[in-house]
Amino acid sequence: MAQTTLLNDTFLRALLRQPTAYTPVWLMRQAGRYLPEYRASRARAGSFMDLATNPDFATEVTLQPLDRYPLDAAILFSDILTIPDAMGLGLEFVAGEGPRFQRPVRTEEDVARLAVPDIDATLRYVTDAVSQIRRALTDAQGRQRVPLIGFSGSPWTLACYMVEGAGSSDFHTVKTMLYARPDLMERILEINAQAVVAYLNAQIEAGAQAVMIFDSWGGALAEGAYQRFSLAYIERIVAQLKREHNGARVPVITFTKGGGQWLEEIAATGVDAVGLDWTTDLGRARERIGQRVALQGNLDPAILFAPPAAIRAEARTLLDRFGNHPGHVFNLGHGISQFTPPEHVAELIAEVHQHSRLIRQGTV
Amino acid sequence: MAQTTLLNDTFLRALLRQPTAYTPVWLMRQAGRYLPEYRASRARAGSFMDLATNPDFATEVTLQPLDRYPLDAAILFSDILTIPDAMGLGLEFVAGEGPRFQRPVRTEEDVARLAVPDIDATLRYVTDAVSQIRRALTDAQGRQRVPLIGFSGSPWTLACYMVEGAGSSDFHTVKTMLYARPDLMERILEINAQAVVAYLNAQIEAGAQAVMIFDSWGGALAEGAYQRFSLAYIERIVAQLKREHNGARVPVITFTKGGGQWLEEIAATGVDAVGLDWTTDLGRARERIGQRVALQGNLDPAILFAPPAAIRAEARTLLDRFGNHPGHVFNLGHGISQFTPPEHVAELIAEVHQHSRLIRQGTV
Repeated sequence: MAQTTLLNDTFLRALLRQPTAYTPVWLMRQAGRYLPEYRASRARAGSFMDLATNPDFATEVTLQPLDRYPLDAAILFSDILTIPDAMGLGLEFVAGEGPRFQRPVRTEEDVARLAVPDIDATLRYVTDAVSQIRRALTDAQGRQRVPLIGFSGSPWTLACYMVEGAGSSDFHTVKTMLYARPDLMERILEINAQAVVAYLNAQIEAGAQAVMIFDSWGGALAEGAYQRFSLAYIERIVAQLKREHNGARVPVITFTKGGGQWLEEIAATGVDAVGLDWTTDLGRARERIGQRVALQGNLDPAILFAPPAAIRAEARTLLDRFGNHPGHVFNLGHGISQFTPPEHVAELIAEVHQHSRLIRQGTV
Repeated sequence: MAQTTLLNDTFLRALLRQPTAYTPVWLMRQAGRYLPEYRASRARAGSFMDLATNPDFATEVTLQPLDRYPLDAAILFSDILTIPDAMGLGLEFVAGEGPRFQRPVRTEEDVARLAVPDIDATLRYVTDAVSQIRRALTDAQGRQRVPLIGFSGSPWTLACYMVEGAGSSDFHTVKTMLYARPDLMERILEINAQAVVAYLNAQIEAGAQAVMIFDSWGGALAEGAYQRFSLAYIERIVAQLKREHNGARVPVITFTKGGGQWLEEIAATGVDAVGLDWTTDLGRARERIGQRVALQGNLDPAILFAPPAAIRAEARTLLDRFGNHPGHVFNLGHGISQFTPPEHVAELIAEVHQHSRLIRQGTV
């Protein structure tokens, strides 16, 4: 991927705690079912994985929210379960039930069989999509609209799905392994961590300009277990990521849903930015963390069901709580709901941009 | 209920931050499906609600874990959804799906119809169960084995079920009402709060010696919304509870699952004790809160799936983190799982009692 000129680098600057004219915004799962154009693409493609594994489709849906809204970043359209699928566990999506693995990792033999997948051989469709999205974001003069984010699930979050075989409300199976056979769990996490490093570095080489580690289920772990079975592996990954590519710094974001109490420890892993869910007060979080890392978040996605005036008021409250400081990327505290009215997203983004400009100018 | 002599008042003393010879322990949902004797009672009674609404059965199952383990408290066997059921919403338990309401509260008209139920007319089965359990805990000489805890859901947690009509993973419906029509939500919460006050005070008069408010879904709320839509109503309830009955102080515990970040604010509501889930470090929590309130918790229930040695080690770690201070009631950070081996519970309780005695004696 040759050098390009970014027309809008607000997102990358905010991640690096550099001054920006306004607060950049993107939304987790911004290419998704709430958009009618996404549903149309999905209907043409077939299944969710048909969409994710075809670089043409992945590029098409990645760009859909950017064509509709003045978002400050694009994020690769993919799924966090591509890695365990590449490990041969047999990912399938059952309608109304979410993802499942045909061959979950349960026994000592299952764990012994597990190996780091060859990214180029098994996940080429992802790196191809990254390259193709970068090209689609860039015009003939080499001017790129917004930066592209690559991502992966965290070792622990991948392990949850690999061991449970599906989503879970109490993580009975994976926690049983964690407490009863920590040696097996650590072997899975070690393999996952190596795979995540290779996967994210391949995305960076293919053109991802920032990467994010989604630790969606870290908040299910107990104090102590979180540090040992999730955060330690994130830290190991962060230390092995390419932090510069083609002369540009590649910021790293990590997001542990339910991890607000561990903010200081997460910030100490070497990441550039920490994602927060909506239970954490953004003003107190900034006080706790100072300028050590940027913060990303943290609107409750449910606010997008409210009328526009309420959405705008909540966005202002959150921006005011963070205050006039560098290092904030506005986002939801979780993926956007499929039931979100698309026009409400436009209201949110407009308010974030407008109000944060006023904050920067000192006029509010 | 006449005065009785408590043979074991360790639990009540710990809630009031008084010295105790060891750390008292009880387990949320300790009378439950993990016990074969519970499953036998349930099979005889019929449905879950047949069990809960019959004081004979409720007494029988409340005492089952006490006959098996040296627990330091009994808790009324009931359900948090008795109040909305008494409001006429039509509670039913669908096999494999959990509780549902036949008539959820969705519209302005639904909210207008809502009224505080007459506790004596509609929830007499609960207060009768409380009296009967108190008698069953007490011998002919008036000596009571352990204190009895009464409980209720918090106004917000009740509202979640009332508006959603069932459990939910994203609280789409109730949060839409909260953000789009906060006036309707506040009306529901106001009625719920009045009902909870009347309900808990009736339980106290019937013989409950401590009461607990379960805010199971408070942690789903955003910073700001939690304070306004959950905590404010808990505070109002706490101010109106009978804190003394028959010459004995009646301590109040509140537990917001996922509320670790709000510990100081929860402690400031006037409660005697705050429940914590397993994501909060007990040592840091004690530092944050000092002696203002007692703390209850906070073992991950999943630890009970591990072998006994691991269970005992985790119990010791948690007791050590709290340290040699008054004001700790050992508990899980959530209800015990139905898949828990009953013999593992015995190991846990033995270790809590043994190790906390050693801590008190300064020998560890």
